[in-house]
Amino acid sequence: MNRIKVKIPEHEYEVVLGDDIIYDLKNEIQHLDLSSRVFAIIDENLFKLHRSKISEALSKFKIEPKYVIIEAKEENKSLEMLQYIFEKLLYYQCGRDAVILAIGGGIIGDLAGYAAASYMRGLPYVQVPTTLLAAVDSSVGGKTGVNFMQRKNIIGAFHQPELVLADTKLLKTLNKEEILCGLGEIIKYGYLSNEDFYQKIKNNVDNILALESKVLSEIISESVKIKAGVVRQDEKESGLRKILNLGHTFSHAIESEQNYSIKHGTAVIVGISAALYLSENLNLISTEKLNSLLELINKVKPHINLSKMEGEKLYEIMFNDKKNREGKIKFVLVKDIGEVLIDVEADKESVINAIEKAERLFL
Amino acid sequence: MNRIKVKIPEHEYEVVLGDDIIYDLKNEIQHLDLSSRVFAIIDENLFKLHRSKISEALSKFKIEPKYVIIEAKEENKSLEMLQYIFEKLLYYQCGRDAVILAIGGGIIGDLAGYAAASYMRGLPYVQVPTTLLAAVDSSVGGKTGVNFMQRKNIIGAFHQPELVLADTKLLKTLNKEEILCGLGEIIKYGYLSNEDFYQKIKNNVDNILALESKVLSEIISESVKIKAGVVRQDEKESGLRKILNLGHTFSHAIESEQNYSIKHGTAVIVGISAALYLSENLNLISTEKLNSLLELINKVKPHINLSKMEGEKLYEIMFNDKKNREGKIKFVLVKDIGEVLIDVEADKESVINAIEKAERLFL
Repeated sequence: MNRIKVKIPEHEYEVVLGDDIIYDLKNEIQHLDLSSRVFAIIDENLFKLHRSKISEALSKFKIEPKYVIIEAKEENKSLEMLQYIFEKLLYYQCGRDAVILAIGGGIIGDLAGYAAASYMRGLPYVQVPTTLLAAVDSSVGGKTGVNFMQRKNIIGAFHQPELVLADTKLLKTLNKEEILCGLGEIIKYGYLSNEDFYQKIKNNVDNILALESKVLSEIISESVKIKAGVVRQDEKESGLRKILNLGHTFSHAIESEQNYSIKHGTAVIVGISAALYLSENLNLISTEKLNSLLELINKVKPHINLSKMEGEKLYEIMFNDKKNREGKIKFVLVKDIGEVLIDVEADKESVINAIEKAERLFL
Repeated sequence: MNRIKVKIPEHEYEVVLGDDIIYDLKNEIQHLDLSSRVFAIIDENLFKLHRSKISEALSKFKIEPKYVIIEAKEENKSLEMLQYIFEKLLYYQCGRDAVILAIGGGIIGDLAGYAAASYMRGLPYVQVPTTLLAAVDSSVGGKTGVNFMQRKNIIGAFHQPELVLADTKLLKTLNKEEILCGLGEIIKYGYLSNEDFYQKIKNNVDNILALESKVLSEIISESVKIKAGVVRQDEKESGLRKILNLGHTFSHAIESEQNYSIKHGTAVIVGISAALYLSENLNLISTEKLNSLLELINKVKPHINLSKMEGEKLYEIMFNDKKNREGKIKFVLVKDIGEVLIDVEADKESVINAIEKAERLFL
């Protein structure tokens, strides 16, 4: 078992990583002096696949846990579903002495986390990420929220969990698309961190896709450390935390432009590529540096299916994105591995050109 | 002009009090280095009464402010109205560089504050309380939220404002019922603070009801100081802040039992009385002490209209109230002026008896 501390002003919690550790959930929660009155918000599909495992783990709590089962689809990350959760919590007479469990991927985590942030002005909650994406990214850092009027995560809260418990055994049933989602973020950490980790990812793309236990565990652990380090220094994203948006200004727009038919992981990988091309277009890096930085991207390229995109439309969507203050699009760009620039402005032509180059790379 | 500092871990803001100071709003906001892109959520009735004043004050901002006008009724403190505000914010392309203004009483403040807490995971906001209740209580301390399924403030967030600006001139159009709402909280502060303030309130009940400028300003200022002092020590209500609930376990239940036909201020005053009687029932105070503590209540008694209540039903409602952990009702009780007990449990019979005594006092 692997334990990583996430320290944030006024709050500290652990990410616990390991194989088959979901059975420790009760003990871990008890150690934190949290109530054993547990409300578990669970991904429907996961529950089908791992019902006996999850039921056994939850049956250890002194008080019988209440279950809220939700289909983990993007449309369910909505104010309506939030209201449904509130109704359930009230129906079960959930009080301040309760703990919310989010058992699932990013959708469940964001939704359950925001429900926990809002119900009675905030209940403690525990993340049990069951996708690679949630394990390396969304379960850590306290960003919660729902979509509204075609805007992703536009309504939400910063609400840190009391604990993140990632059972790598639950990841074994992930399909390739789901693994790619996590890989997208892992690749992002490759660019944000250092040459060693970048090389490690580059040399293990196939092992990660095959969910090879030892590699997976090391990669998740390192990714969580990187994210925890960033969040510790800037919880509310006033500066440094923006580096975590590398590729995401593009990817959010790509997902929207493709009416969410494209997978998040694919969009992130294409988005990172566009950011690299934009770095070159703005003369932040040489063509040689670009080619060297594209080596990791080239390793995953065979696994990416991209449809044709409309550069002009993508630009318009980015222009309306929530991360852009005062009507200007701000990009996170890469100068080198571990050397990232935030709040970079770019002319429209350079942006659209970068998108077109990224598109050509994958088509 | 009177300035009171509210200090909370990681956040500090001022409550600015004065006559006709709404015209300073733009300068005060500018001083804080906040954006001049302002979204004003305004009480409809107030806007009718003070339209030219408010419009003039808001016209000073460099960018033309956007208005969202809302009828300040309890039913509007809802998830639906919250959604309506989000729609408006999106429609006006409100970004992270915006400031939300809440111009109105507690309903507008709670609703606008929670919208500000949730939109883009939190925008800065400024409270402009325009009722006595909001000026002395709800605008300070960062509690925001809406009602859901008959439960008051069950969904919400702790979100501190950047500034509270209370223009006492705007209070002049309040009717007696609205003034009583504020007076209920002021009386509460009387019991929480010290003999001097208690006596000052007792001797000025009629002056407060007449909105006598000098007295009003002193009383508001002292009330805000008391509240700010408590909130500073316990923002999230894990302990001390509970003293601010004096009378409120009863009053929330009374309002619910009377289907919100009773005024909040009346319910609070009756609730404080019930708490005093319960203190005696539990032998925390002598009958003599009770009578001396009832002197302030007796001063406001002539202004209170109470309908018959059902003690048994009230008890049931309290039993389900959100402040009660593990199925036990916890009361805030008074031992003496400035000496308050929190988390006191009581037997059902004593509670119902206290309610009946309070009822007899006012009927």
